[in-house]
Amino acid sequence: MNEVLRENDSASAVRDVRSFAAGQWIGADDTARAIHSAVTGRLIARAGCAALDVEAMLDHARKVGGPNLRAMTFHQRAKMLKALALHLGQHKDRLYEISFATGATQKDHLIDIDGGIGTMFVFASKGRREMPDAHVYLDGDVEQLSRNGTFLGQHICTPLQGVAVHINAFNFPVWGMLEKLAPTLLAGVPAIVKPATASCYVTELAVEILLESGLLPAGALQLVSGGLGDMLDRLTSQDVVSFTGSAETALKLRSAPHILGNSIRFIAEQDSLNASILGPDAAPGTPEFDLFIKEVTREMTAKAGQKCTAIRRILAPDAHVADVIEALQAKLSKTTIGDPKDAATRMGALVSGSQKADVLEKAAMIGAEADRVFGDPENFDVHGASAEDGAFLPPMLFHCANPDAATNVHEVEAFGPVSTVMPYGDLDHAIALANRGQGSLVASVITHDPDVARQVAMGAGAFHGRLYFNDRDSMGESTGHGSPLPHMVHGGPGRAGGGEEMGGVRGVMHYMQRTAIQGSPDILTAIGGKWVPDATEITHDDHPFTRTFHDLEIGETFRTRPRQITSDDVAHFAEFTGDTFYAHMDDAAARRNPFFPGRVAHGYLLLSFAAGLFVQPDEGPVLANTGLDNLRFMKPVEPGDSIKVRLTVKHKTPRNDEYGEVRWHVTLTNQDEDLVAEYDLLTMSAYAAR
Amino acid sequence: MNEVLRENDSASAVRDVRSFAAGQWIGADDTARAIHSAVTGRLIARAGCAALDVEAMLDHARKVGGPNLRAMTFHQRAKMLKALALHLGQHKDRLYEISFATGATQKDHLIDIDGGIGTMFVFASKGRREMPDAHVYLDGDVEQLSRNGTFLGQHICTPLQGVAVHINAFNFPVWGMLEKLAPTLLAGVPAIVKPATASCYVTELAVEILLESGLLPAGALQLVSGGLGDMLDRLTSQDVVSFTGSAETALKLRSAPHILGNSIRFIAEQDSLNASILGPDAAPGTPEFDLFIKEVTREMTAKAGQKCTAIRRILAPDAHVADVIEALQAKLSKTTIGDPKDAATRMGALVSGSQKADVLEKAAMIGAEADRVFGDPENFDVHGASAEDGAFLPPMLFHCANPDAATNVHEVEAFGPVSTVMPYGDLDHAIALANRGQGSLVASVITHDPDVARQVAMGAGAFHGRLYFNDRDSMGESTGHGSPLPHMVHGGPGRAGGGEEMGGVRGVMHYMQRTAIQGSPDILTAIGGKWVPDATEITHDDHPFTRTFHDLEIGETFRTRPRQITSDDVAHFAEFTGDTFYAHMDDAAARRNPFFPGRVAHGYLLLSFAAGLFVQPDEGPVLANTGLDNLRFMKPVEPGDSIKVRLTVKHKTPRNDEYGEVRWHVTLTNQDEDLVAEYDLLTMSAYAAR
Repeated sequence: MNEVLRENDSASAVRDVRSFAAGQWIGADDTARAIHSAVTGRLIARAGCAALDVEAMLDHARKVGGPNLRAMTFHQRAKMLKALALHLGQHKDRLYEISFATGATQKDHLIDIDGGIGTMFVFASKGRREMPDAHVYLDGDVEQLSRNGTFLGQHICTPLQGVAVHINAFNFPVWGMLEKLAPTLLAGVPAIVKPATASCYVTELAVEILLESGLLPAGALQLVSGGLGDMLDRLTSQDVVSFTGSAETALKLRSAPHILGNSIRFIAEQDSLNASILGPDAAPGTPEFDLFIKEVTREMTAKAGQKCTAIRRILAPDAHVADVIEALQAKLSKTTIGDPKDAATRMGALVSGSQKADVLEKAAMIGAEADRVFGDPENFDVHGASAEDGAFLPPMLFHCANPDAATNVHEVEAFGPVSTVMPYGDLDHAIALANRGQGSLVASVITHDPDVARQVAMGAGAFHGRLYFNDRDSMGESTGHGSPLPHMVHGGPGRAGGGEEMGGVRGVMHYMQRTAIQGSPDILTAIGGKWVPDATEITHDDHPFTRTFHDLEIGETFRTRPRQITSDDVAHFAEFTGDTFYAHMDDAAARRNPFFPGRVAHGYLLLSFAAGLFVQPDEGPVLANTGLDNLRFMKPVEPGDSIKVRLTVKHKTPRNDEYGEVRWHVTLTNQDEDLVAEYDLLTMSAYAAR
Repeated sequence: MNEVLRENDSASAVRDVRSFAAGQWIGADDTARAIHSAVTGRLIARAGCAALDVEAMLDHARKVGGPNLRAMTFHQRAKMLKALALHLGQHKDRLYEISFATGATQKDHLIDIDGGIGTMFVFASKGRREMPDAHVYLDGDVEQLSRNGTFLGQHICTPLQGVAVHINAFNFPVWGMLEKLAPTLLAGVPAIVKPATASCYVTELAVEILLESGLLPAGALQLVSGGLGDMLDRLTSQDVVSFTGSAETALKLRSAPHILGNSIRFIAEQDSLNASILGPDAAPGTPEFDLFIKEVTREMTAKAGQKCTAIRRILAPDAHVADVIEALQAKLSKTTIGDPKDAATRMGALVSGSQKADVLEKAAMIGAEADRVFGDPENFDVHGASAEDGAFLPPMLFHCANPDAATNVHEVEAFGPVSTVMPYGDLDHAIALANRGQGSLVASVITHDPDVARQVAMGAGAFHGRLYFNDRDSMGESTGHGSPLPHMVHGGPGRAGGGEEMGGVRGVMHYMQRTAIQGSPDILTAIGGKWVPDATEITHDDHPFTRTFHDLEIGETFRTRPRQITSDDVAHFAEFTGDTFYAHMDDAAARRNPFFPGRVAHGYLLLSFAAGLFVQPDEGPVLANTGLDNLRFMKPVEPGDSIKVRLTVKHKTPRNDEYGEVRWHVTLTNQDEDLVAEYDLLTMSAYAAR
């Protein structure tokens, strides 16, 4: 029966949406809730099973999924994410097909399905590039806690040993799952996903595709279609709840004494009265004015306005309000509403009749403070579908002439194609109005004036999780006011829930514990897998450049003979390179400089001689010097001084099937053992001997 | 009257502990609570004023303190912290003198008073070294969000626009205030400090000294001695509550619908059943065994065990339990208990009679599962004070033979000189027992085996905010199991409250909002004050090395002429430096390398020639090249190719009264405009022309 529905969601059969619990698919039972098509209003599915054994699910995640994931390194998990994303991409047509019944158009599917897959790819890439091929993530640098360096500090992050419970909203059944799942799995934590019932059949199919891939270890992913039962009352402080949905539900869940009493992490992303500001400079006729109209229209109509990041408040300079309303009316009047499968349709249906009723109720509250200047929910055209049966609404634009005196327009979120234009005086007024939302996910400013951008960032930054700026320079590549990107944090203070998701590695940390580690250099090296200065040096007879990537040990050290720097060396280097800076040429002038005792050698001369001292000239595993980090010149070198080099393997990161990056800690010391320079040298080193 | 008490806390006068509200000192009123000396039991002070206008205090902080602090840069606030710490240091004898009445010894004062001052110094230093001399803190790197780089991302942090309410515990009336106040002020956020009543007279004096300094802008610091009234119900999502105290009080406060409904940040640091593990290798006779006994004894007796980080659970290998108990008994029997002013006293009194009663009640619960093997609260010596009048207790050591079957020993915190020894089998068992605390502030392991340390970090890291390792190598400089350091995060998951404090800049972020910024390179440069690649270049006729630190503009760019690299250059450089790596010498061998098209120039040759191209040789504002960051070689340069350099002012950071650091973005391109190398060059540049 499920297959039939997947082939053709207009089939009359009713789909039983299953849960995936402790390794088993469990069907709906008599307690299941009915799910109707957003487009036809027909009963299409039912979800929920009262008999679901939530304790067994938690147990399976904690005892099977967690250990399986923690046995993998960050790179292994990242590769798994990439493979999962590729697999989903191969099956995305199945997801497109089933998603139309939620009221979403093909363009909406791109946001939800392709957007979700893209998010997984970004996390896969960040995991490979920004995290180590190891089990411990190092947060920040070594902290010097003692004078002689025998006692040091380092922050590490390790995976929580519990389970992440993801409670998702109805509007993005695929992206909503994947944007939480990707960082969770990368962290090494198993997930139990609970989609909103209205669109849970799409999530069920996505989970089925993920599991079919065979890429996920047992226990890493489970699914609850329907209610969670008392699962949240069984969590511990090693677990995380990550919630997206209404402020009302969030408050109810996070207020539970069990959650509060055990300090269980609760990440919430909830209501948000996002504002978009037309910059004072962006008058009609400028590219920015047209861009503003385009952004606002898109945010009002994409996903029929059912986006937590949609623009709810449109702030325009007093003088341009009439132009903005007129331009939006013109643009919105071209919005074809109807059957989401029809390519001509620009806006589909809301997810359900109850969602439509809720939007109308909220729109009426806004209407008490603002005039409706576009869109009559009692009178609009629906193409290719029935306005009575489907949850259709027209875009509705309001105009609030006195936003300072109004309340609802800043506090009531109509989660549909509804937005309100309001005038502002000067930029401080615009900032104050934007902040009246008391915390939002995103605010945007369309301006070509960097100073306007800076003022808004300073005045409104503290109230918004994201500030989106766009102008003629960036509009060709900008991603849109309403698009959370996996690289950037998504969330916001106050009304928006006070949570954060994504933001690259930042989002992975929500599923890990940061721990301050204190101890000796040897202890820190053993825990972090990265050589800490003054840790025990390992020596081999062979030159380290003759040893392969895998043979090299963390702490392996090579010390060179000394080389004297002569006055002729300095003069010659100056002449050869053209670097005749006075400190290298003129003893008297150098003495007038606060850094130099007299004429000194070039820093680049020291680096070059150092390479001459440590290099092994023959073909071998070291393929190339690819870079250098954190070089600091500590003490000047005068003609007559000598330098010698110490080279230590600090860290290793595989890069591909052939070679990996070796980070060498390098110190240059003079004849008195004073530190002259210090840096990290990067080489690519082959896995095989050459 | 206050002065009299400050001179001599045994005066019979009763001190009225004042609040500092909206710029005024407000005395106690009839609703005030009585405060007794921990040592004599005499009434020494009273605190509380029902008429305190909390709304006016919040208003003063938000409208006066916040704007005053936000007008300062991070460096200005850091300098203020340093000056405040110096000022406190000059007056610390006044704080020592008044603190004895809390039961604390001079050694305890060093933890509280000197420790608090030291914490301020570290934050001052971190603010100068790790934060910019600006109003916006950049979190992480620029994110590439578009193919051509016209639309980019950057995370910024700006100060919250509300107030931080600090609710502190009784045990550290000075450190407890300063460890929260330093990061709050550095963030640019005003604070209202509410100390625990039992020791609030010490905090009052510290606040008085801070205010006397004249260093704090109006509204930056207010004090509530006594109750907060309904202040917490008047907070918004721009405010922060930072709480240290009991889990019970924390739960009550954080459960308030107003706090939850407005997503108000609530940082809690509460109960913690901290464990210390004697490593399997640390047998009697090793330096580690003796170190373990010393650490445990210190943690049991310092501050009479009234430390949130004290060791409550002592885990020792089965075989060594008897030795541990015997050694602790010997050591504890030397603990002289009595008048804290007496230099011979090793342990003073608990803060109050009610605290003593609470400890005895909890100790009885532990006693239900464990045998008391040291310390009889009914029978112990008190020197120089009356055991009846003062809140004295002996150190009490318990032995729980079967910790797997026990509950109270893992869950009940007796907040006094009480600890329990328990045996473990293998290391996994020790880890499991340590984790039975369900989240703690710190666990320690005394071991000389790095592998033991690594295993504990992996197995227990997720349950503990800090893991402290100590051994023969670090014991000379280690800071102690129980000392939270300003560099490292302090807090812990679960039972410990789920909060974090300090940890350097991490702790400052608790009072700032992180915002994802998206926009064009020019917009990001204007907001962040740091040049972003592809932002508009600024050009001047003068060479930038002839321009002073303050004259240089972010984005100011200098482009050099090209220089050809000849085959002779490469051969000569190899011979001169000794860097005869085959890729520079042997065309055929170089071709066999996956990175090179044939014989190539040395990377250091390119750096050296680049310097020769961009350097301005004469004396001028640029004093020295002090370092180089993020050098990456992007494309090999072959003999016959030419390179040219672009040098752009990326960022500026003042370092002292004479000069500051200029970070230059440098790119090397070849004759085809391909990027050959990229790096950040650091120079020190003078404020004045030379």
